[in-house]
Amino acid sequence: MRDIENWARLHAGEATMTVTIDDIRAAAETLKGQVVRTPLVPAERIGADIGCRLHLKLESLQATGSFKDRGAYVKLSTLARDEPELNGVIAMSAGNHAQGVAYHARRLGIPATIVMPEFAPFTKVERTRAYGARVVLAGDTLDASFLSAREIAEQDELRFVHPYDDPLIVAGQGSIGLELLEDLPEVDCIVVPIGGGGIISGIATAAKTLKPEVEIIGVEAALFPSMYQALHNEVPTSGGTTLADGIAVKNPGKLTRPIIEKLVSDILLVDESSIEQAIHCLVEDQKIVAEGAGAAGVAAMLRFPERFAGKTVAAIICGGNIDVRLLSSVLARGLVRDGRLVRLRVEIIDQPGTMARLSQIIGRSGANIIEVFHQRLFADVPPKQADIDFVLETRNREHVQEIIDGLRGDGFASRVLSSRSSDGLS
Amino acid sequence: MRDIENWARLHAGEATMTVTIDDIRAAAETLKGQVVRTPLVPAERIGADIGCRLHLKLESLQATGSFKDRGAYVKLSTLARDEPELNGVIAMSAGNHAQGVAYHARRLGIPATIVMPEFAPFTKVERTRAYGARVVLAGDTLDASFLSAREIAEQDELRFVHPYDDPLIVAGQGSIGLELLEDLPEVDCIVVPIGGGGIISGIATAAKTLKPEVEIIGVEAALFPSMYQALHNEVPTSGGTTLADGIAVKNPGKLTRPIIEKLVSDILLVDESSIEQAIHCLVEDQKIVAEGAGAAGVAAMLRFPERFAGKTVAAIICGGNIDVRLLSSVLARGLVRDGRLVRLRVEIIDQPGTMARLSQIIGRSGANIIEVFHQRLFADVPPKQADIDFVLETRNREHVQEIIDGLRGDGFASRVLSSRSSDGLS
Repeated sequence: MRDIENWARLHAGEATMTVTIDDIRAAAETLKGQVVRTPLVPAERIGADIGCRLHLKLESLQATGSFKDRGAYVKLSTLARDEPELNGVIAMSAGNHAQGVAYHARRLGIPATIVMPEFAPFTKVERTRAYGARVVLAGDTLDASFLSAREIAEQDELRFVHPYDDPLIVAGQGSIGLELLEDLPEVDCIVVPIGGGGIISGIATAAKTLKPEVEIIGVEAALFPSMYQALHNEVPTSGGTTLADGIAVKNPGKLTRPIIEKLVSDILLVDESSIEQAIHCLVEDQKIVAEGAGAAGVAAMLRFPERFAGKTVAAIICGGNIDVRLLSSVLARGLVRDGRLVRLRVEIIDQPGTMARLSQIIGRSGANIIEVFHQRLFADVPPKQADIDFVLETRNREHVQEIIDGLRGDGFASRVLSSRSSDGLS
Repeated sequence: MRDIENWARLHAGEATMTVTIDDIRAAAETLKGQVVRTPLVPAERIGADIGCRLHLKLESLQATGSFKDRGAYVKLSTLARDEPELNGVIAMSAGNHAQGVAYHARRLGIPATIVMPEFAPFTKVERTRAYGARVVLAGDTLDASFLSAREIAEQDELRFVHPYDDPLIVAGQGSIGLELLEDLPEVDCIVVPIGGGGIISGIATAAKTLKPEVEIIGVEAALFPSMYQALHNEVPTSGGTTLADGIAVKNPGKLTRPIIEKLVSDILLVDESSIEQAIHCLVEDQKIVAEGAGAAGVAAMLRFPERFAGKTVAAIICGGNIDVRLLSSVLARGLVRDGRLVRLRVEIIDQPGTMARLSQIIGRSGANIIEVFHQRLFADVPPKQADIDFVLETRNREHVQEIIDGLRGDGFASRVLSSRSSDGLS
């Protein structure tokens, strides 16, 4: 891949591979009125759980649902100004970068080609097409797609837009840091997810220049700890399926790595269960839709609260593009985790009237019966016995225990089938 | 109920039953730094669907998840200042008003009692208790709870805090209008849900004073058109179960009604299916969690787009307190509606290898099999035949049709079990 990386860096203009506060200020000027100046909102409930004064910067409210709008607009508007003869741009991404580039390229009248891996979710392909981009599905891995993008770029003479190893992109994302310091000058600590490292490099450069004592904390998915491992000289292990696909990056950025090494205090790694819980909390407690990568900062805070106790903290909700199907399922799983939705298996002697008795006991307890499964052919019990499964809406784990106790009081043994431990999803 | 209403109005101080821009400015001054100055964010995707420039004011981001924080703080802080000898306050509400009063009463050190109907959802009771209020569950209807609240108020000498028929409450909600005009002076039209009418009265008073040509549109759930019917001298019909429980109010406000009559151009009524669709769109397209009442404005715009075409519109997302269970189900139902989740029943001759063939055809089509139901004992078909139901993840309705055609090409008849028409939920 070294070959590809070199080529990509060349396209990004390696001669100017550095980012300063002046670059970021210029980018912010360029962005005025072109992207959303996103709100920073207090998140009192989650903050109380963590023991800090928490604020969330909602990049999820950008037009394409993530911070990528910023860098994309700065890069593309600069190209439009400096190279009006350009044939068009090309990007490789299955996610937010694709949408950011496609959306702003159309606004600026630049033809855009987006190369996506063949396995890209249909909704992301459709949305990118809806922004007017030519979408090419090529490659069964991200690396293979990258190669295809390079071929198409050279064949059609298109300018490659790198998702993070580009000073203009990093400067664009850095505008988040300027806004944040303007809105919350008293901030002690800024928590930022790391994929390739573009957003954290930009924010860290801006924030540490304006307020050197501010602490910048990076967050990666434990399955993709590429920047953490690069900085700690560990063997790379990235891989797997993560909820935080937006930061599932195997190769840390070349431009971003030294900036992170210099300015970021810590990189915290979060497991999938913490990410899932953070998505759920953001919806339930703060009414905010975040994708896995967008929730990673909050996940890290919920996982390591002692690291943030007593501080004024800003976490960047970097994107909200979570598949609705996935979100629906995360919310339902959260209810199971909290004991608010439970599958209870009751052993019965199979005789008329039993169901009525059971329903009565459950109804009296205040639980709501959602589904009933009554199968006797395959149950692993003697012929005259049977199992009935009830899916119940309950108040919490204590309530579930009350119901089990109530059933036992009436002579029915029962057990929970769907319980999860609070610290891990089965 | 006249008796109760008179009593409540008396408590609210009927002598001053009017609200002016000066009251609202004073309320806004009182609120500074005490509640969230909520962001107004562009909603480009939904706006494009409607054909207008749409902005959303996110009252869902207040500490207790709705605009009720504003009126509650203004009322309670005024009481704390003017009547320091007060025993405490009492409110009757199963929803957002309860939380707003409980939360700010604790902040101000005022003992709060909240009377909720016996059927109040457990999560709302718990959350209100968590804010430190004494919760009394009383009455099997809202009217009965109101009577209990009055009894307790008189017995314990507590001050009743009305949810909308109180000038201080209305002035507090009016601060939304001031912020809106400050953030979007070019607004043509403001869309506001109506329950008792407190929020729309406040916003209309503020906005029409500052910009007389701005149009104020109210929205009620079609099941609870109480203000619409009152203004049109129609027989009241309110009742039923609505997703927009936050605006399911049977008795229009006495203070608010004349303000609405004078300042509001239109009241639009939205059916349940439009509200459900709006909740879904807000999550998917704008990454915003809204409760049914909070989504009602957007529902009205999606239902009657011609009314808003070409305008600069602000809709108030008045609250985000939707039960997570309900939200999860609304999202899943939306997928079914859009043909992205489908239950397909296939008729088969029951012989080995059939399932493999079916799975192959479905797999080739790009659909993902989620669940399989294969039951032959109760199927209404001859013994050697059977039905298999597949729950599939699909791309859209066309994709579903492709799969049905593909199955037919291989000799399998199939039909969709879960389809809904696009304009109504079954």
